[in-house]
Amino acid sequence: MKYVAILGFGVVGSGVAEVLSMNENKIARHVGDKVKVKYILDLRDFPGSPFEKLVTHDADQVFNDPDVKVVVETIGGARIAYEYTKRALSMGKSVVTSNKELVATHGPELMDLACKNRCIYLYEAAVGGGIPIIRPLHRCLAANRVVRIAGIVNGTTNYILTNMRDNGVSYEEALKQAQANGYAEQNPTADVDGIDAQRKLSILSSIALDGTYVAPSEIHTEGISGLSLDDIDFAGKIGCKVKLLAVFNNGDEGSSVYVAPHFVRSTSVLYPVEGVFNAIVVEGNALGEAMFYGQGAGKLPTASAVVGDILEAVMPVDAVAYSHNWSVPSNEGRVTLPYEKSVVNIVVRAPLASQEEVNNAFASYDVQTVLEDGEYACFVRGISNAEADDIVSKINGASKMHLYE
Amino acid sequence: MKYVAILGFGVVGSGVAEVLSMNENKIARHVGDKVKVKYILDLRDFPGSPFEKLVTHDADQVFNDPDVKVVVETIGGARIAYEYTKRALSMGKSVVTSNKELVATHGPELMDLACKNRCIYLYEAAVGGGIPIIRPLHRCLAANRVVRIAGIVNGTTNYILTNMRDNGVSYEEALKQAQANGYAEQNPTADVDGIDAQRKLSILSSIALDGTYVAPSEIHTEGISGLSLDDIDFAGKIGCKVKLLAVFNNGDEGSSVYVAPHFVRSTSVLYPVEGVFNAIVVEGNALGEAMFYGQGAGKLPTASAVVGDILEAVMPVDAVAYSHNWSVPSNEGRVTLPYEKSVVNIVVRAPLASQEEVNNAFASYDVQTVLEDGEYACFVRGISNAEADDIVSKINGASKMHLYE
Repeated sequence: MKYVAILGFGVVGSGVAEVLSMNENKIARHVGDKVKVKYILDLRDFPGSPFEKLVTHDADQVFNDPDVKVVVETIGGARIAYEYTKRALSMGKSVVTSNKELVATHGPELMDLACKNRCIYLYEAAVGGGIPIIRPLHRCLAANRVVRIAGIVNGTTNYILTNMRDNGVSYEEALKQAQANGYAEQNPTADVDGIDAQRKLSILSSIALDGTYVAPSEIHTEGISGLSLDDIDFAGKIGCKVKLLAVFNNGDEGSSVYVAPHFVRSTSVLYPVEGVFNAIVVEGNALGEAMFYGQGAGKLPTASAVVGDILEAVMPVDAVAYSHNWSVPSNEGRVTLPYEKSVVNIVVRAPLASQEEVNNAFASYDVQTVLEDGEYACFVRGISNAEADDIVSKINGASKMHLYE
Repeated sequence: MKYVAILGFGVVGSGVAEVLSMNENKIARHVGDKVKVKYILDLRDFPGSPFEKLVTHDADQVFNDPDVKVVVETIGGARIAYEYTKRALSMGKSVVTSNKELVATHGPELMDLACKNRCIYLYEAAVGGGIPIIRPLHRCLAANRVVRIAGIVNGTTNYILTNMRDNGVSYEEALKQAQANGYAEQNPTADVDGIDAQRKLSILSSIALDGTYVAPSEIHTEGISGLSLDDIDFAGKIGCKVKLLAVFNNGDEGSSVYVAPHFVRSTSVLYPVEGVFNAIVVEGNALGEAMFYGQGAGKLPTASAVVGDILEAVMPVDAVAYSHNWSVPSNEGRVTLPYEKSVVNIVVRAPLASQEEVNNAFASYDVQTVLEDGEYACFVRGISNAEADDIVSKINGASKMHLYE
């Protein structure tokens, strides 16, 4: 059994407990052992929570328990979190965090402390929420000189900008709606002034420069509060959208790092990134351009990244390197469903004359139909290939294609 | 010094030598030691190549050299590559590869052999070329039950389909052009019949199922050679594009895995993926949906992934876990350029009356101008922020915004 302690039972901390519980078996298979939360350290009690009994207010109890080899810091901020992180690392307990402020502010000291005490400080969740970006940048791109990073790394501001554009509302109104929908905090400063993006860029740049620390204080930062609807409209007229980008540019003269609103052209891979989604473009001198896209925040997505780090931290060190291992199922049979039994979404294409026939044939499915140029398209969802083939073969002139949406 | 041997000096193998050489210093910083190619094993000679002197035809020389701890297998195919990989792993030499056929066909045996001999078999480059996908899926998403994978994993077919759509050419014509441009081989079967995608899907599915091997033979596979221009046109009419997708769906009844052409809706993140680019959507039950996008093939992109694996394989095992370490530069000064000196692309917005003034002011730059609704937009590339601010401040009614394209 591998035991972890969660410090701070807020949105992310409770998400971590939930993911460890809901994916218990999958995680045990991956690690080769069970991973259990032994303590949840918080000032509050959580009556009624399924994790109620694990809650403690006594930090000494958590830190002095030799069973706890990995500590999850989901407190946030750079005060108590900083003290607890130093305490854990000094004792040789690995720490896993989603705390971008702490990593951006005290990263060098904390990583050094981890190194000296032969434990790990991991922070995949600090940038891009659940999107894998820290490990890919640090390991998969290790062979590259990172030439450029450009990222939509703050979902709140992207939600506001998307709303302004799509619904023609003012910045103030869009912010109010974001607050009402839980996408912006009551004090939105860290998001709308670009501070959150600045911290994330500090982290990405430090990795891109192979460990040379780029302090948040040296990152020129502009937020979105000065943007008007007119800016957004103008962007549209010239084939652009306005996005708050965190930019790292590694030029011959030196690196440029800044957070600022940008006109993003429709030809760019960042153009379609809307609402609370994040996307980070990384350009390496060998790789060329790659993009990482997904939900940059939220309870379970962020917890997904934190738990991914936990699973690395709890494993015996050599297992980290050796853990790819595929097994052939013992029954010698196939692992997956036969194609005929696979349930898919399809588009059935048929002559207009067959419209009624098609509708009747798929009446029991979730269908949506489109008429086009004397032809008929029927979107059918949740049907097995065998049944789809069977039905389509009976309709004169009909054919089918898989649908991805 | 860490020594590696490259087996097979084709496109990828020579790319690996090139990346190790061109990013030598960056790589030495990452590893904490130099990484050098000691041998290149190939049947051919390469007179004139900068790596000419490293070429040997004697496999025994390579395998019996105790300096060689990591072997790079870029031979391709599942015959000689299979024998050499088994030989290296049996001797405790780690093997790094881009060979999807070999991993998909003999993955379980080879990983088991690596495990038994305390070395590593890594294959990041086998799927998605340079795009980080294997390590993110295996490690970053380890906390997730993988619900779905849908990927454009074959650039050749995507190039053909994009060309058919954009230029209205037939499948046969598009294939011929792809061959002429070096995007398709003279015998295109493995690509156009979906075999290459099938192998990649075998690899992705085996990881998604946490190491339960999904053999290529159980993957239903359709290629694109049966598609007509009419199919492509019809897709466009109903708001879709045709893409060859590799699909893994982990449902309650079991997993479905298949390669087939799909109508991809314009609302999907896969819709904008054009030409030789690859993109893989992964959905985890905690993460939600993430997408990985980039160049799925090519000499340097693929070499980027191979060398990333080499750097993991040459490091002492505990360094793999402990290698995040940021340092504060000793001069206490800033690491990056001041914002004023950063070179950027901008859009200058000005009243129509200022058009000539703007053009003159930016005459020495790469500019492109757009007239819109009585206003004027000037795209200026490669200018420092200080100069941009200076010029814009002197033009009546002008403002600027960063440009991303």
